[in-house]
Amino acid sequence: MDSSLPDRVVTDPDVARTYGVDHSPGAVAPEAFTVVRARDRADVVEVLQYAAAHRTPVVTQGARTATTGAAVALEGGIVLNTEAINQVEVDPVERIAVVGPGVVNGDLKSQLTAYGLAYPPDPASSGSCTIGGNIATNAGGLCCVKYGVTADYVRGLEVVLAGGEVMRTGRRTAKGVTGYDLTGLFVGSEGTLGVVTEAVLRLIPAPDPPLTVLAVFDTLEATLAGVTALREQRHTPSLIELLDGPSVAAIQDYGDYGFPAGAEGVLLVQSDRVGHAHEDVMAYADALTSAGATDVAVADDRAEADLLMEGRRALNPALEARGSRLIEDVCVPVGRLGDLVRAVHEIATRQGLEATCSGHAGDGNLHPCFFFDQDDAAQVAAAQAAFGEVVEAAWSLGGTLTGEHGVGTLKAPWLERELGAAEVARQRALKALFDPLGIMNPGRVFG
Amino acid sequence: MDSSLPDRVVTDPDVARTYGVDHSPGAVAPEAFTVVRARDRADVVEVLQYAAAHRTPVVTQGARTATTGAAVALEGGIVLNTEAINQVEVDPVERIAVVGPGVVNGDLKSQLTAYGLAYPPDPASSGSCTIGGNIATNAGGLCCVKYGVTADYVRGLEVVLAGGEVMRTGRRTAKGVTGYDLTGLFVGSEGTLGVVTEAVLRLIPAPDPPLTVLAVFDTLEATLAGVTALREQRHTPSLIELLDGPSVAAIQDYGDYGFPAGAEGVLLVQSDRVGHAHEDVMAYADALTSAGATDVAVADDRAEADLLMEGRRALNPALEARGSRLIEDVCVPVGRLGDLVRAVHEIATRQGLEATCSGHAGDGNLHPCFFFDQDDAAQVAAAQAAFGEVVEAAWSLGGTLTGEHGVGTLKAPWLERELGAAEVARQRALKALFDPLGIMNPGRVFG
Repeated sequence: MDSSLPDRVVTDPDVARTYGVDHSPGAVAPEAFTVVRARDRADVVEVLQYAAAHRTPVVTQGARTATTGAAVALEGGIVLNTEAINQVEVDPVERIAVVGPGVVNGDLKSQLTAYGLAYPPDPASSGSCTIGGNIATNAGGLCCVKYGVTADYVRGLEVVLAGGEVMRTGRRTAKGVTGYDLTGLFVGSEGTLGVVTEAVLRLIPAPDPPLTVLAVFDTLEATLAGVTALREQRHTPSLIELLDGPSVAAIQDYGDYGFPAGAEGVLLVQSDRVGHAHEDVMAYADALTSAGATDVAVADDRAEADLLMEGRRALNPALEARGSRLIEDVCVPVGRLGDLVRAVHEIATRQGLEATCSGHAGDGNLHPCFFFDQDDAAQVAAAQAAFGEVVEAAWSLGGTLTGEHGVGTLKAPWLERELGAAEVARQRALKALFDPLGIMNPGRVFG
Repeated sequence: MDSSLPDRVVTDPDVARTYGVDHSPGAVAPEAFTVVRARDRADVVEVLQYAAAHRTPVVTQGARTATTGAAVALEGGIVLNTEAINQVEVDPVERIAVVGPGVVNGDLKSQLTAYGLAYPPDPASSGSCTIGGNIATNAGGLCCVKYGVTADYVRGLEVVLAGGEVMRTGRRTAKGVTGYDLTGLFVGSEGTLGVVTEAVLRLIPAPDPPLTVLAVFDTLEATLAGVTALREQRHTPSLIELLDGPSVAAIQDYGDYGFPAGAEGVLLVQSDRVGHAHEDVMAYADALTSAGATDVAVADDRAEADLLMEGRRALNPALEARGSRLIEDVCVPVGRLGDLVRAVHEIATRQGLEATCSGHAGDGNLHPCFFFDQDDAAQVAAAQAAFGEVVEAAWSLGGTLTGEHGVGTLKAPWLERELGAAEVARQRALKALFDPLGIMNPGRVFG
C-alpha cells in the first residue's frame, strides 16, 4: 500500500493484528497484511483501485463477528475495514433507512425507536455486528420466524467493485423493475463480489415490546410437538427458540438459570403483536401445555419477559466456557427438525463426543455444537467427522449447509456437493464478471 | 420446429395467432412463429435444446397479460407457453407452495384458503395472470403497500436455460446462504435469462377479509394530505388507491358509481388486520376527514366493502372504453406523489391531451394514462412525447421508469438513461452468461 491514505492505514502492528481474524474457531492471522479503515466511499474506491493495479487480495470487514473465516486477513492482502462508514439517514415517510455498512445493527435499532420504526434482523451479535456484515452473510437471528432475514429488508445497495467502479443495485422506491435487480446477488456474497458502501433498508412500524413464554419438557418428542403446535398458530410468534437437554444442562452448569434437572427440552416463545402480546403468549402457553410441557412460565411484563430470556442468552457464554467446539448452522424444513436433533445426538454418541443442539426452531435453523479437546488428535478428528455428518444429515432431510452464518472458509469444502459442479462453475463465472482479477476475498465461499 | 412434440405444438393457425400478442397497446403478431404449449419441465427442456441447436429465438409466455410487449411473438421464433404447467403443492407446516409457472394467481389464492394461508401479490389481472408471468415482471398490485411485491414471496426457482440445462436457485427452507442466491436476478428478468418451471413461494397466515373506506376530496392537495395521513398510521393499510379528478370523471362517464361531480380526488383504503379491520378503517376515516375529505364512507361488512371498491374496479374498463391510450407505470417516493400527479396534469395540458392519473398511492406507483386519436398523427406524437415527459418527471423526483409492469419493448428506449451505459453493459454480460446465444426473448428489456 502506498502512502496516499496515511491516516486510514493502521500503522501500529499490534492494533493491525487485531484486524487479522474474525470469530471463527481457530482463526489465525497471516504474517503480513495491511489494514485500511475506510471513512467513506472515496476511501473504498481508492483502495480498490490500488488493489486492482497491484493485484492485491482484499478482505472486506466490519466488526469481525463472522464465524466462518470469511473476514480473516489474507497473506499479503489488504483488510478493508468499513466500520467507520456508519452514517444513518432515516426517512420516516418512505419508511427506509439509508445507512453505511459500518452501522452496528443494535445502534440502528436504537436510532429507529424515536421514529416508531424497526429494522427486524437480529443476529445474536446485534450489539456489535455491522449492517455490512449482516448483508455479506444475509444474517438472520432470532426474529426470522416472523420477520425473515436481512435480504428481506435490503431494497438497494451502492457497491464498489474491484478496480474502483461504483455501481448501484435495486432502488429507493417501494417498487421498481427497470432492468435486473442485482441486490439479492450481493446479499450473502461474503465480500467476494464487491464492497457495499451504502444500503437502502426497508423499515417496518415498531411492534410492541415482546412478552415471553418459557416451556420445559421432559422428552425431546414433546418439545418437538410443542414446535408443531406453535406452527399452527394463526399469529406467528416473533421468536421460537429451542434448547435441547444437553444445552439446558450446559447452561445450568454455567449458572443457575432455574431450569429443572432432567429437562430434555426447553422452548422460548415470544409475541410482539401490537396490542395482543399478552393474549398471544397465553395462547402459546396453552398450546405448549397441550403438547406436553411439564412447566410453563408466562411473563406478564417486559422485565419478566426479559428475565425468562436470560437462560437462552446464557447459552453462548456457557458453550464458550466449555472450551473448544465446532458450531454448525444447518437449516432443514421445520417439519424435519426432530429428525435433525435426533441425528445430532446419534452422531455425537457414535463419535464419542458431547454435543448440544439448539437454535431457531421456528426456521428449522439449528446450531449443533460438538465439544472436543484440541490437544487430543482423535477428538479433533471426531469433531470434524461429526461436523460433516451433520451436514449430510441436513441434506438428507432436504436442508442446507448454512442457514445464516455463510460459507466462508470453514464450510467451503461442502459447497460443491450441495450446489453441484455446474452451479459452482456458473457462480464462479458470475464472480468473474464483477471481479475479473479474482482479488475480492479470494478462496472464500468457493474454496 | 421438428415433429418430436406433435401434440404440444399448436397447429391450427387461427389458434396459434392468438398466442402472438400480449396486452400491450398496438401489439402486432409477426408473420411466422411456432407455438408450443409445454406440459412439464421435460417439454421445456426439449424446446430449449431445439432452440439452441437451431439458434431460434424463444418468447416465454403465460396468460399474455403483459402490457409492455415482453410476451409478443418474434418473427421465426418459438412461443413457449407454460400455462399448462400448473401444479400446486401446498405445505402448510413449512408455509410454502411449490407451483408451476402456469398457475393462475387467483386460482392459487383460492386453493390456499382451505389452509388458512395466503399468497399476497395481487396484480389487477389476478383472475387470469399466471405466477410465471408475475415472476417474470416482479408483479405488484394493490396490496403492496402492506405486503410487498412478488420478489418478496419467491424463495426459490427451478429454471431451464437456453440449451436445456436445468438449474435451481434459492431454497425451500426458511433460511439458506450456501453460495449466491440468484432468485432475485431471475425475478423481473422478463424471459431474458431462462424459463421458470417451478417456484417455491412463501405463504403467510390468511388475514381477515378487508374492510374499506372511500374518501372524496374536492382538491388534489387535500387528497394528497390524506395519503400522508395514512402513511403515519401505525397499522399500515392493506390498500391505498388514488383516483384523480379525471379518473373519477372517466369512471362516472362509464357508469354511475356514485362519485360526486367535481371530485378532484378519491382515496380507497382497506384494512385486513386480524380482528381489527373495523377499528382500522374507522381510524383511517377519521384521519381522512381531518385531512379534508368532503365525504367519507366506511363499509361495515364485507359486501359493503366490496361495493365501495366497485368504482375502482371500473377504472380499467372505463379507460378502455375511451379508446387509444398510453399507460405509464412510474414509481416515485411516496413523499413526491403530489409532484408527480401535478406534473402529469401539466404535461397533458401542454400536449393538448386528456389524461388520468391513478394507482397505488401507498407505494408511489401510479399509472398515468394519456388518450389520443390514433388516426391523428399529431395526437399520437403528442401522446408519445407526454409518455417520455412523465418518465423524465419521475426521474427528477427520484423515481423509476417502471414500478411493476416491466420494461418489455415499450420502455426499452428509456432503460439506458435510467441505469447508465456501464450498468446496461454489465446486465447484458450477465444475460450472456445464462444465454450465450442470445435466444431468450432477444431485444426485450435491453432493446
